[in-house]
Amino acid sequence: MGPLATVDFMQKIIALTAASKDQEHLPMLVHNVPQIPDRSACILEGSEDPFPALLRGLRSLERGGAECVVIPCNTAHFWFEKLQKHAQIPMISILDCVQKHIRQHRLGKVGVMATSATVSAVMYQELIENDGRECLIPDQDMQTLMMQAIYDIKAGRLELGSQRMKVVFDDLVNKGAEAVVLGCTEIPIGLAEVVKTSPEQCIDATALLASACVDWYNQKEARVAA
Amino acid sequence: MGPLATVDFMQKIIALTAASKDQEHLPMLVHNVPQIPDRSACILEGSEDPFPALLRGLRSLERGGAECVVIPCNTAHFWFEKLQKHAQIPMISILDCVQKHIRQHRLGKVGVMATSATVSAVMYQELIENDGRECLIPDQDMQTLMMQAIYDIKAGRLELGSQRMKVVFDDLVNKGAEAVVLGCTEIPIGLAEVVKTSPEQCIDATALLASACVDWYNQKEARVAA
Repeated sequence: MGPLATVDFMQKIIALTAASKDQEHLPMLVHNVPQIPDRSACILEGSEDPFPALLRGLRSLERGGAECVVIPCNTAHFWFEKLQKHAQIPMISILDCVQKHIRQHRLGKVGVMATSATVSAVMYQELIENDGRECLIPDQDMQTLMMQAIYDIKAGRLELGSQRMKVVFDDLVNKGAEAVVLGCTEIPIGLAEVVKTSPEQCIDATALLASACVDWYNQKEARVAA
Repeated sequence: MGPLATVDFMQKIIALTAASKDQEHLPMLVHNVPQIPDRSACILEGSEDPFPALLRGLRSLERGGAECVVIPCNTAHFWFEKLQKHAQIPMISILDCVQKHIRQHRLGKVGVMATSATVSAVMYQELIENDGRECLIPDQDMQTLMMQAIYDIKAGRLELGSQRMKVVFDDLVNKGAEAVVLGCTEIPIGLAEVVKTSPEQCIDATALLASACVDWYNQKEARVAA
């Protein structure tokens, strides 16, 4: 829902595609409409429900000819199942992508950086603990810093947001997280340097969703060719 | 039509928007479908006509609820007027944005970097010379290098494409161009450093189109508020 996060997601799909010319890149229809009511404010304070706007976005993409829908916004996955029930085309969940990665890497102790709403709705904690793993979330002060950092990125204050995110990331690693879920699509933008230098410590949810899209597309093309 | 160019265009719109939170950013519906037949090959060699695919893109955006359409691809503007006749919503031409800029800056001698098809169709030359200004285009060898560089960027070879573009840019400036139209949306990606260090010598068509979109949106919002 953050426009820079959407662009980051598109860039990751492009970078993950083995293409030698335009026509080999993935076709995308992108509903980058940041007017969707604040997901965090709704979950935490009961402000305007973003679901009707999310559903309008889904319908716009379906009418536009999309064949598969993903949402590069972790907090919005609070409404994922409800949206999926209304969808006429398949949807891929960012939570499923992260869960698959954590299982594949047999991680024991996983940190989670996300919006206060995602944390409050225990979206990632449940997914990690139900698998018998330990989940570390920031304490209250760190979570406050986390939210400030996310809104920094949304407002274009990249440098400040990046510094704040690094503090939260280091704190989770110091407390024993083997890897940290970057569970809000603004976080891989702020932590781009950390993702580059310590990829094994970062679970970049945006990148995992992008990779799942490329896989979906390649499988579809293979089916069409068969 | 190049997916990286589309992302560059979106980033420019985001950077040009004075927004303190998601909801103040421009809503965009983006038809990033690089399967549209090669524009250059059609103009130069008479290969498959991209017009039907361009029209399908326009219809997809109209059905999806777009209220104004732009095409971040200079070569595709060969079909702009024909598309505009079919459009049910307003369209903004990248050529018009560049022409306005050249007039405002009262430039006498303007260089043009573009695809061989855009050059062959005299799209920018006409626009510049009809205003009584001088237009400089690359000689044949430089134009060959130019096309290689554009396809480098489309294939993800950013470093190589960038080096090749710099040679063509320097050649035009050495021949007396006061400023150079970056008249293919892959060029501002390759020449990002030059745009940063010598902005007065660069006429970044992508950035001018992005700026026109922000203006269009702000005027529309002002009308709605009035």
